[in-house]
Amino acid sequence: MALIVQKFGGTSIGTAERIESVADRIALFRDRGDDIVVVVSAMSGETNRLVALAQSIDENPNEREYDVLLATGEQVTIALLSMALNKRGIAARSYTGSQVHILTDSAHNKARILDIEEKNLRTDLDKGRVIVVAGFQGVDESGNITTLGRGGSDTTAVALAAALKADECQIYTDVDGVYTTDPRVVPEAQRLDKITFEEMLEMASLGSKVLQIRAVEFAGKYNVPLRVLSSFDEPNFKDDEPNGTLITFEKDEKESEMEQALISGIAFNRDEAKLTILGVPDEPGVAYKILGPIGDNNIEIDMIIQNIGADGTTDFTFTVHRNDLSVAKEILTNTANELGAREVIGDDKIVKISIVGVGMRSHAGIASQMFKALADEGININMISTSEIKISVVVDEKYLELGVRTLHSAFGLEQSS
Amino acid sequence: MALIVQKFGGTSIGTAERIESVADRIALFRDRGDDIVVVVSAMSGETNRLVALAQSIDENPNEREYDVLLATGEQVTIALLSMALNKRGIAARSYTGSQVHILTDSAHNKARILDIEEKNLRTDLDKGRVIVVAGFQGVDESGNITTLGRGGSDTTAVALAAALKADECQIYTDVDGVYTTDPRVVPEAQRLDKITFEEMLEMASLGSKVLQIRAVEFAGKYNVPLRVLSSFDEPNFKDDEPNGTLITFEKDEKESEMEQALISGIAFNRDEAKLTILGVPDEPGVAYKILGPIGDNNIEIDMIIQNIGADGTTDFTFTVHRNDLSVAKEILTNTANELGAREVIGDDKIVKISIVGVGMRSHAGIASQMFKALADEGININMISTSEIKISVVVDEKYLELGVRTLHSAFGLEQSS
Repeated sequence: MALIVQKFGGTSIGTAERIESVADRIALFRDRGDDIVVVVSAMSGETNRLVALAQSIDENPNEREYDVLLATGEQVTIALLSMALNKRGIAARSYTGSQVHILTDSAHNKARILDIEEKNLRTDLDKGRVIVVAGFQGVDESGNITTLGRGGSDTTAVALAAALKADECQIYTDVDGVYTTDPRVVPEAQRLDKITFEEMLEMASLGSKVLQIRAVEFAGKYNVPLRVLSSFDEPNFKDDEPNGTLITFEKDEKESEMEQALISGIAFNRDEAKLTILGVPDEPGVAYKILGPIGDNNIEIDMIIQNIGADGTTDFTFTVHRNDLSVAKEILTNTANELGAREVIGDDKIVKISIVGVGMRSHAGIASQMFKALADEGININMISTSEIKISVVVDEKYLELGVRTLHSAFGLEQSS
Repeated sequence: MALIVQKFGGTSIGTAERIESVADRIALFRDRGDDIVVVVSAMSGETNRLVALAQSIDENPNEREYDVLLATGEQVTIALLSMALNKRGIAARSYTGSQVHILTDSAHNKARILDIEEKNLRTDLDKGRVIVVAGFQGVDESGNITTLGRGGSDTTAVALAAALKADECQIYTDVDGVYTTDPRVVPEAQRLDKITFEEMLEMASLGSKVLQIRAVEFAGKYNVPLRVLSSFDEPNFKDDEPNGTLITFEKDEKESEMEQALISGIAFNRDEAKLTILGVPDEPGVAYKILGPIGDNNIEIDMIIQNIGADGTTDFTFTVHRNDLSVAKEILTNTANELGAREVIGDDKIVKISIVGVGMRSHAGIASQMFKALADEGININMISTSEIKISVVVDEKYLELGVRTLHSAFGLEQSS
C-alpha cells in the first residue's frame, strides 16, 4: 500500500487500445491497494495537430491563445482514461490543470509551477478515487490557462508527488530506464538500476530526453523518489527486481565503495546553437548587458564562455536552444550595436557531448582522459564547460556519433550497471 | 455603435479559412464601432470525432468525463478565432465556459445555465477587447465541467446577451433566416423577415433546427432581440434591408391588421418516438407514476395523450426523443409491471407535423382546415395536440413530405412574407 503518482506520455496513451492498457496497469496497482494519481500527456500526434492548426491561422500565434489551444490535448486524454477506469469499476475523476489548481506564473508557453492545492486531491483519495490530472498545463493568478512547455507533464507529475508526499513518482515512457547513453548511437549502452539526482539532472539537461530537466530539479528539491520505466513492460511487484531506473539522492555508501563507476553516462544534445559576439569593449557589467536582454525574452542560455582579448575588448560565446537562435541573434545584434561590438556570429551546426558521474568528484584526471580520447580520434573541441559531476564539450555536429562511442568505450560503460 | 453578441456554429468556423472569414466579419463590425462578444461552437466534425473517441473506450461513457472530453471542441475554436483576431490587430481574449463562469446545474450532458458573471466581461469590453466565449459549456458549483447538450451554443449566446443587456444577439448559421418550412421539402418555402418569439419557440421545438429551443425561451424571458442570419452573406448595415430573420416579441400592430398570415410556418420533427402503455388501472396519480420515472432520468417528454378505457383502465401515449426510446421503454416496462398494466408498445416510425402562427388565436376553424387537407390526401392522424398558436399531428413517417407540402399550400405560404 503506497501512494504512487504515475505519468504516461503521448506514446503510452496514443490510441484507445493503449489507453485501455494503461487502465489495466492502474487496476493492478489498485488491486494491490495502492492509491494512484495519474498524470497524462496529449495523445501522440495530437499536440502536433494542434500546432499545425495554430500555424494555419498565424505563424506567430498569440501566446495566451496558443496555451488555450494546446491545453485541449491533455484534456482529451484525461477524459478518455477516466472513462476507461470507470468502465472497469474503478472510481476515477479527471482534472484539468486549472481544476486541480496547478498555479503557475504567467509566462505563457513556458510557465513555472508555483503551487498546487492539495486539499481537493486528498478528499478524492480518501474516497478511494483514482485522480487523473492533465499534465503540461496550469492556471495563472488571473485564471488564464498556461502551459509548461514541451515535456512539462513530467514536471506536473513530480510537483503532484511533492505536494502529496507520494511514495514514488513513476514516469512511464517507451524506454525501460536510463541508459549509459542513447542505445541508438551506442548499441552496447547499458540500463542503470539507479542513478543519482545530480547525475540525472545533468543527463536530462544534456539531452538524454528521458526526463524533463525541471522535473528532475523539482524531484531533487522536494525529495521525490522518481522512477523511469516502460509502459510496455509488465509491472513487477517483486522488491528484488524492480523495473526501470530509480533516481536516488545518493548512491548507497556500500555500493559506492565497492564498484563505483567513475562515469555513469554519456549525454549529448543536438538542440543547441552557438552565438558569439566579438570585440566587445571590456567594462564592468558587460556580461549582464549581453545576456540580460536574452533572458528578458525568456530564452534560456546554457554554456557561457568569455575570453579577454588583447586590445581591451572581450569575446563572448554562449549556447541557446536552436529554436531560439534567430530571435537571440537579432537581440544580440542590437546589443552589439549599442555596445559598439565588432561582430555577431551564429552557428547551429554544433552538438554538445558530456560525461556525467558523481565518481569524478573524488578522482582526478577525468578531464584529461576525456580530451585525450577525443583527440585520439581527431575530434576538435570548440567549447568546454565543467561542473562538479560533468564535463561538457561542444564539437562539430558531424562528430556526434564518433565522439559518443569513443567516450562510452573509453570509460568502460559497456560493462556498467 | 451597439453591443452585439454573435454566435457562429460549426460549419461557419469549420476550417482555418472560415475562421479567417469570421474574423473579417467581426472586423467590419469593430470598424463601425460595435462592441462584440463572440460565441463559437466546435469546428464541424470535431464533436463527432470526440464522440467516436469516447465510444471507442466505452459505449456508455461516464457522463462527467464525457463533458470534459466534449468541452475541448469549443476550446480549440475560441483559441483559433482569438488568434485570427489578434493577427488583425483586434485585441481579443478567449474564455472557456468555466473561465467566463457560466454557472450551470450538475446535469452532465444536458446542464442548464443558472448564472453568468458579467463583471470580467465588462472589464474586457471597457478595454476595447473582443470577447470570444466557448459555447455549449459551463461549470457547476463544484467546478466540474458541464455541457448544455447539442445546440447549446445558441443558449450560451442568448444567455450572454441577456447578462450583458446586448442590443442584439445574432445567430449565424448556414441558412439566411427562418423559412415558412424546410425548403428541402417544399422548394416554394419563403424567408420570413420577422417571426414572434412564441412562433419561433414552437418552430424550434418542433424541429425546424435553425435555433435551439432553450435559446429561444431564454431570449423571450430576458427580452433579447434575436436574429438568425447566414455567415456566408455579406453583412448589411442598411436599416431598411436587414439580413436574416428577426425574432420579435409581437408582430407590429399595423402589420398584424393589414396582412396577417394565419399561419407563419409548417414545422416537422423526425426525431420523436411514441410510447404507449395499455390497460393501466385508472387511479389518482397514475400520470405521475408513469411519467415521473421518465423525467427522473432526464428524458424529456413532448406530447402526452391519455384515453380512458371501458373497463376501468386507461391507455397512455407519449412521445420522447428517438435516442431516448430504448431507455424510456425499459423504464416504462418496469412501471407497467409495478402498476399491473397490460402492455407497452414503442414506435419510432412516426413524425410530427405542426402548423404554427399567432394568427390562429383570433381565427376559428384552423384545426378543421388542417385535418381536412390531410384527409384529402389520405393521411391518417395518430395523435393530435394543440396549443394557442400551434396544432401538431403525429403521422406515419412515410407521409412526412406529402403532409408538409399539403399544409404549406393549404395555408397559402408560398406568397408569405
